[in-house]
Amino acid sequence: MSGSVFGKIFQVSTFGESHGAALGAIVDGMPAGVKIDREFLNNEMLRRRPGQSAMTTARNESDQVEILSGVLDDVSTGTPIALLIRNADQHSKDYSNIAEIFRPGHADFGYFAKYGIRDVRGGGRSSGRETCARVAAGALAKMFLKTLNVNICAWSSEIAGVKARAFDPEEIERNPARCPDKTAALAMQQAAADARSRGDSVGGIVKCRISGIPAGWGEPVFDKLDARLAYAMLSLGGVKGIEFGDGFAAAGLRGSENNDPMLPGKTFASNHAGGILGGISTGAEIDFTIAVKPTPSISMEQNTVNIRGEAQKITITGRHDPCIVPRIIPVVEAMAAIVLADFALLNRCSKL
Amino acid sequence: MSGSVFGKIFQVSTFGESHGAALGAIVDGMPAGVKIDREFLNNEMLRRRPGQSAMTTARNESDQVEILSGVLDDVSTGTPIALLIRNADQHSKDYSNIAEIFRPGHADFGYFAKYGIRDVRGGGRSSGRETCARVAAGALAKMFLKTLNVNICAWSSEIAGVKARAFDPEEIERNPARCPDKTAALAMQQAAADARSRGDSVGGIVKCRISGIPAGWGEPVFDKLDARLAYAMLSLGGVKGIEFGDGFAAAGLRGSENNDPMLPGKTFASNHAGGILGGISTGAEIDFTIAVKPTPSISMEQNTVNIRGEAQKITITGRHDPCIVPRIIPVVEAMAAIVLADFALLNRCSKL
Amino acid sequence: MSGSVFGKIFQVSTFGESHGAALGAIVDGMPAGVKIDREFLNNEMLRRRPGQSAMTTARNESDQVEILSGVLDDVSTGTPIALLIRNADQHSKDYSNIAEIFRPGHADFGYFAKYGIRDVRGGGRSSGRETCARVAAGALAKMFLKTLNVNICAWSSEIAGVKARAFDPEEIERNPARCPDKTAALAMQQAAADARSRGDSVGGIVKCRISGIPAGWGEPVFDKLDARLAYAMLSLGGVKGIEFGDGFAAAGLRGSENNDPMLPGKTFASNHAGGILGGISTGAEIDFTIAVKPTPSISMEQNTVNIRGEAQKITITGRHDPCIVPRIIPVVEAMAAIVLADFALLNRCSKL
Amino acid sequence: MSGSVFGKIFQVSTFGESHGAALGAIVDGMPAGVKIDREFLNNEMLRRRPGQSAMTTARNESDQVEILSGVLDDVSTGTPIALLIRNADQHSKDYSNIAEIFRPGHADFGYFAKYGIRDVRGGGRSSGRETCARVAAGALAKMFLKTLNVNICAWSSEIAGVKARAFDPEEIERNPARCPDKTAALAMQQAAADARSRGDSVGGIVKCRISGIPAGWGEPVFDKLDARLAYAMLSLGGVKGIEFGDGFAAAGLRGSENNDPMLPGKTFASNHAGGILGGISTGAEIDFTIAVKPTPSISMEQNTVNIRGEAQKITITGRHDPCIVPRIIPVVEAMAAIVLADFALLNRCSKL
Repeated sequence: MSGSVFGKIFQVSTFGESHGAALGAIVDGMPAGVKIDREFLNNEMLRRRPGQSAMTTARNESDQVEILSGVLDDVSTGTPIALLIRNADQHSKDYSNIAEIFRPGHADFGYFAKYGIRDVRGGGRSSGRETCARVAAGALAKMFLKTLNVNICAWSSEIAGVKARAFDPEEIERNPARCPDKTAALAMQQAAADARSRGDSVGGIVKCRISGIPAGWGEPVFDKLDARLAYAMLSLGGVKGIEFGDGFAAAGLRGSENNDPMLPGKTFASNHAGGILGGISTGAEIDFTIAVKPTPSISMEQNTVNIRGEAQKITITGRHDPCIVPRIIPVVEAMAAIVLADFALLNRCSKL
Repeated sequence: MSGSVFGKIFQVSTFGESHGAALGAIVDGMPAGVKIDREFLNNEMLRRRPGQSAMTTARNESDQVEILSGVLDDVSTGTPIALLIRNADQHSKDYSNIAEIFRPGHADFGYFAKYGIRDVRGGGRSSGRETCARVAAGALAKMFLKTLNVNICAWSSEIAGVKARAFDPEEIERNPARCPDKTAALAMQQAAADARSRGDSVGGIVKCRISGIPAGWGEPVFDKLDARLAYAMLSLGGVKGIEFGDGFAAAGLRGSENNDPMLPGKTFASNHAGGILGGISTGAEIDFTIAVKPTPSISMEQNTVNIRGEAQKITITGRHDPCIVPRIIPVVEAMAAIVLADFALLNRCSKL
Repeated sequence: MSGSVFGKIFQVSTFGESHGAALGAIVDGMPAGVKIDREFLNNEMLRRRPGQSAMTTARNESDQVEILSGVLDDVSTGTPIALLIRNADQHSKDYSNIAEIFRPGHADFGYFAKYGIRDVRGGGRSSGRETCARVAAGALAKMFLKTLNVNICAWSSEIAGVKARAFDPEEIERNPARCPDKTAALAMQQAAADARSRGDSVGGIVKCRISGIPAGWGEPVFDKLDARLAYAMLSLGGVKGIEFGDGFAAAGLRGSENNDPMLPGKTFASNHAGGILGGISTGAEIDFTIAVKPTPSISMEQNTVNIRGEAQKITITGRHDPCIVPRIIPVVEAMAAIVLADFALLNRCSKL
Repeated sequence: MSGSVFGKIFQVSTFGESHGAALGAIVDGMPAGVKIDREFLNNEMLRRRPGQSAMTTARNESDQVEILSGVLDDVSTGTPIALLIRNADQHSKDYSNIAEIFRPGHADFGYFAKYGIRDVRGGGRSSGRETCARVAAGALAKMFLKTLNVNICAWSSEIAGVKARAFDPEEIERNPARCPDKTAALAMQQAAADARSRGDSVGGIVKCRISGIPAGWGEPVFDKLDARLAYAMLSLGGVKGIEFGDGFAAAGLRGSENNDPMLPGKTFASNHAGGILGGISTGAEIDFTIAVKPTPSISMEQNTVNIRGEAQKITITGRHDPCIVPRIIPVVEAMAAIVLADFALLNRCSKL
């Protein structure tokens, strides 16, 4: 079945494989009248682009986005906005040696079991490359949310076990680790470089903070705001967990500690909840944290099997990020924006 | 908007408030020919029922489920199965004193901001009571999954900071904590009783293990199996986080540690991934863990505001669980079953 | 798959068989703050009720609707509204003789082929009885639309070949034919009585007129207003066709005849289009016409086969409408209201 | 809201305006393993292409379809198939004189009322040009249906009041009218040419016949097979009505005439029903008929208003079909194929 369509009113369909002709998205449901900022769109794509540092792959993906429809004189018309990103640098031959082998940590075996056929060129649809379509669609969602003064900001809070201890928001986009702690950023980069030099990879933790959401967004009972955000975040290939506010730590608190008292003016004395209670925004900042696994593509030799189930050794060559954490950050923001754009519209339907 | 409909093919709509006339669900998409086991259904409802121990509320919810449609001679006919659960023991008057006050840690303020109107009787739709409709629907999903030899089992792995150290699956349903470690279970009960005696509450951690899922379930890219499970679990009011397999710990591993090598016979040497790679089941056991916050309804005095934003003190009386962890377990299993029943059907459409 | 859920924002799920325990619906997406008028709801149910005249079946369906959720102090709360209608008068034994025979003109064979199982009691889910859930849900939609000054009115324009020649809107609900032409109504009743006396049945034509829809409702390109109305109307078992405005006659006009010139004030000099152009409402009255086939349940002997494919004679006894046209009218209005309530909400999302 | 996504499992999203950069579609849900026949795809596009005769516009739309994803070695992989059609021949300046005027019979006014903004270049999204994306998507659906031996064939049965009297299926694609009656085809062409010479246009009637559908496709109660086909057909801009089998004529029949007796072997002695009963296919041929209005773009002077509501005269120049009936035929087939592909997959989920 589908599975590549997301959202109820602000609805995004994506397509594309790592080494196919192109990737892209249709954004259906963008309200008419939103200013389309192409420079912002390009900049979002640049943030996701590989080859930005030694932490990320050296592949050259220019990722120019062409807007094919739905925009007239730089304003959305209300009709679907199609976004096209050509694959320039395909290098399919790099993958010929693994055509019949399942790469550990990848979706190769699952796809083969599911479809009986598999696009072996760079992981095909399961490649992280598919997220460029999400970033493009998310950039449109952000343009809409900007009109509502919603701001979304994500960063690396931990890479390879190195934790950010300081928080300078200006620092985030200044270092390749996208870490708000300049010192930690250097250590993160070093740890990633060390892993790469051993043919290995590292994972990390990303935090995301959303401001400007008024109280009342989110839909009971299944379409809770946190439920949809979790859905969106876990739809990213390398994400293995999510928590809101205090998250797993809340499990060890008492109710009297975890409850956020309300203050006159309808604000909160604390924000253990991460801005969402019962699935509805409280007006406080929304905070969530996700776990990103280490890149499965490593150049160390690994044990695996081929499509006939026979034991094989595999050594993955080619260009791979030793750590995808910095590059997943714009994708996390994009998916959050897509979820929030949807709820912004859904919330218009709550009352008479 | 809706928000109370879940699933694509196996589609569940629920309704009902804590103190309304009834709660229930329509399950649309149950395949024809499934044996409907009413005893099993009743037993699932009993597992969720309050008043099972000192850990849980003393409310008397009989939770008899009436099947209104879609079943003939104890076999599903393929048409919607409606499930009705009457509210017997409503006690609406308990809540009159908090009609204009927002309870800390509850969705009260969000609902009021959203709808401009709020059902104050026991939290209305945001009450945990709505989960009885999920358990009933989930019991049907389990009946279908049983034909595929899928088994779902959840348990308390931590309550009030007390961790399970042993794992005896037979033990889970034998103790009120639903903990597979008999000794830990006693400590958990004690900790919950202590909290209750102070007018406080505690949270915990639930683990869920699913066996019998073949490789290939899940849909790229948004409808990943883990994404939909996360969506389902975070749609439960008290859940603040989820992780699959090693989850947050995977963020600190290296790729060479985290990748699960494949073995001849297409099994795996380890299961850091929790049975899902790239959103598709691998055939290994699916493992996930969720964080449950402490019950927000506590009888200690708390600071809050009323609907006019004025400072208020609130003391919540009435019958509340000092810990919802044991009772959320059948709900977690139910939601997992609903997700899996959907993917079982969706997967029939993958290939020619 | 589902198939019993309709609508995008104003979403209706129905359930129930002709001779099961109950029928009903969940209406999810009703905005908070709508006055719930139980008398109006009951009256809508009465309009659909059988046994109103010699034109309709003598079955006694009291069709009391119980509202189970989503309403507090007679106002919608924004949460799902569940509607329950018990089946009082089931008479299952009437159907035992046809358990293995496919009734001509009914869905019996299709259901059997589809599900391998069939609820033979009165047609089960395929019975016209399922429409009582639609009327109840539609009554809620009408309550919402009333706040927008939308009015929906349907009537019999032809029964058994007898055409209405006059149009007195006050007359419609005064005669059993629901015909705005008093004289034609008598002839229609006579024709239906004649058919019944021969063990036969008759069909007819229903017209529906909707006023109060502003220009701009409907969504390009698939979710055109007329496309969704057609979807809704053809989902009624006995409906075999629909046309908007001039409909089939428009096929014989020239463009210069069929185009409706616009007048100052943005009204139209004519309304060949039936109030919809390119799937979007024009602000003119919406007019559509549907064809209703003669009731397939007739007491004349018919040729058919049984589940083994063997030739059989069948004589359908029991209580059946010789003409369902008058009773389908409130159902047509209900489905139109459900479609329009959805578009009223969707249209809130069109612009920034 | 969306509105440009159609289907449940076999899901099609389209985009594109008449004079934008490109049009296209994403087909999500195509099962893996379907042979992708590019020649067939191109041929379907050619069938829809304008400029085929004096009956159709002289615009030169080459309509080359580029497949961007989801296909490997000419076989579908199960992932979304994106289809891109560049707009080569845009001539935007033709439309500058009508930028502030609403064209009679077009969606101009509705779009303006809805979005407060309007793409005036050739009707934008409301142009019949958007159907080229449907034909491309429908060609993929046909490739899947071919594996199930489903065949879909549509033709002109009436144009400008000229009716087809003979039926030679071989003749349909041989004449510009797509009429199975060679003699009538000539008269149809003459009538269209006459209308064009007067600056006018004509409409017509299209019939569609589908063979190879087994009994059991379609979903009760809302997603009836005929309901979804009606939804699909009325989503075509110029279609004003649809009927199945005997359709409106059935309204004048008696039950004893209209019921189709079943014969040993589970076939039918007649097919008044058009192959669908109670929304489920019977195994007989599916027959439906649609009404197509005359092209609203005519070069005769017409009365209308501008965006300020002031009276205006309008004369539409440019290249327009005097009759769209022949060109809508491949679009009708495409939409039917999209609906049927969806039901083919949905039907896999009916039984245990």
